[in-house]
Amino acid sequence: MEIIKEVTLMQARSKAAKAEGQKVVFVPTMGFLHDGHRELIKTGRKAAGKDGLLVLSIFVNPAQFGPKEDLSTYPRDMDRDLKMAGEEGVDAVFTPGVDDVYPRGFETFVEVTELQKHLCGERRPGHFRGVATVVLKLFNMVMPDSAVFGKKDYQQLKIIERMARDLNLGVDIIGVDTVRESDGLAMSSRNAYLSEPERRAARSIPGSLKAASDGVATGVRQARDLIEIMKKIIEKEPVAVIEYIRVCDKESLEDLDTIEDEALVALAVSIGRARLIDNRIVSIRLRA
Amino acid sequence: MEIIKEVTLMQARSKAAKAEGQKVVFVPTMGFLHDGHRELIKTGRKAAGKDGLLVLSIFVNPAQFGPKEDLSTYPRDMDRDLKMAGEEGVDAVFTPGVDDVYPRGFETFVEVTELQKHLCGERRPGHFRGVATVVLKLFNMVMPDSAVFGKKDYQQLKIIERMARDLNLGVDIIGVDTVRESDGLAMSSRNAYLSEPERRAARSIPGSLKAASDGVATGVRQARDLIEIMKKIIEKEPVAVIEYIRVCDKESLEDLDTIEDEALVALAVSIGRARLIDNRIVSIRLRA
Repeated sequence: MEIIKEVTLMQARSKAAKAEGQKVVFVPTMGFLHDGHRELIKTGRKAAGKDGLLVLSIFVNPAQFGPKEDLSTYPRDMDRDLKMAGEEGVDAVFTPGVDDVYPRGFETFVEVTELQKHLCGERRPGHFRGVATVVLKLFNMVMPDSAVFGKKDYQQLKIIERMARDLNLGVDIIGVDTVRESDGLAMSSRNAYLSEPERRAARSIPGSLKAASDGVATGVRQARDLIEIMKKIIEKEPVAVIEYIRVCDKESLEDLDTIEDEALVALAVSIGRARLIDNRIVSIRLRA
Repeated sequence: MEIIKEVTLMQARSKAAKAEGQKVVFVPTMGFLHDGHRELIKTGRKAAGKDGLLVLSIFVNPAQFGPKEDLSTYPRDMDRDLKMAGEEGVDAVFTPGVDDVYPRGFETFVEVTELQKHLCGERRPGHFRGVATVVLKLFNMVMPDSAVFGKKDYQQLKIIERMARDLNLGVDIIGVDTVRESDGLAMSSRNAYLSEPERRAARSIPGSLKAASDGVATGVRQARDLIEIMKKIIEKEPVAVIEYIRVCDKESLEDLDTIEDEALVALAVSIGRARLIDNRIVSIRLRA
């Protein structure tokens, strides 16, 4: 497995692969890999095929953290990350430096203006601008044919899909289902922030999503009723602070009043130092 | 000479050229070509070499026009444009449709946040966002190794250079000197808007730049003094309305008080229906 730090070397590596007709598949991450990432890598390996070039990037992107967020304490473990990458058949790990990605005088940003307004965008101004910008830059460094993103970050996935289409990037975006712990908690690098009692309280997040899904299956149709059901479950945990619970259109992310068919139920909850997000598609066609 | 209308065909054409090791050079325009464009094309032809693929695009970009600007009346003459392209050895003319460039639901924009604030950016909100966005999209459609822009649109050139660097586009940006009429007026498609007396009044624009350059050569160092000299020349023409005259740093485009070495002198003047811009680098090392 190659480890590439320089932007120009990464570009040269991908160009060489393309010149030989190899497919380039890309899994961008912020590192501290868990089994959710493992699933992204497995999906990437399949998409690249035996002969393709599978690139995993590890870059904690300052541009997507707000001034009061956890950039400086974001967990890192490069040795463990490289081990997992090796196990899962990654061909090249790309670990650019912050100053190479954002050199002095950097001032160009991309925004997906409507999709970024909703859900996490309301509370994290500039977050999705930072995400879209770094993903576009990484795409130009890695030059992938396909790139793999998790559905846990559903809004991010939709924004990247939209950006790829709107800017004619020619990159196929592959979404991968959320991987969960045995009790349902979505895998996240930020789960490492949770103490044991906080970790137990965090079960209320997937629990509330299950209750929403069951609610829809048994006839609940009003968004406010679903939100009420979820709120009650999470509020049983005194350490859990709800940032938002939303029922929205799964493409536009605009709030829905009534569920006609399918909907995205998404929430953000702070527990201790961890701000956790999760989501689930609910459907009136599923029975409880 | 090929004429390509479809985005996917353009991408396929460029990919095929690259696969054969051809250099792809791109000259983006809004059409109604004049001798300034001819110079861009000649430069592009040289950069592409005999065997390279030289692509000229003709696309009047709605995203860079304000609601009260001249989008609907912007001059067009496709037959004449194709004739010039053929004469100058263009290999492919790319003429995408507005709905292909901006399909329903389009909402992704690029901004070069600091450079876009100055000069024309102050009076044309959204203009450079529209320019940067369409150029990024066109780059992703044409996939050039190099692209050619005129220095008459100096701020645009600086913004594109910055964007290419900041977003790791891997496109070499080539700037070409302004081509002028015999009396000094910079070539522009919008010169077509001028009546005969307006056309005569427009000479005051390059005249004022020449006076600024001469002023610096003879010892004038204060920006406000230069601006005063220029203002007097243009104000002799009753049909000329000054939008701005600025003396600024030629890289950051920030206003200068005093010229220490070189400076960009730039102005925008409305004459009748035409909003005309021009600029000149002045230097204390040049003697009048």
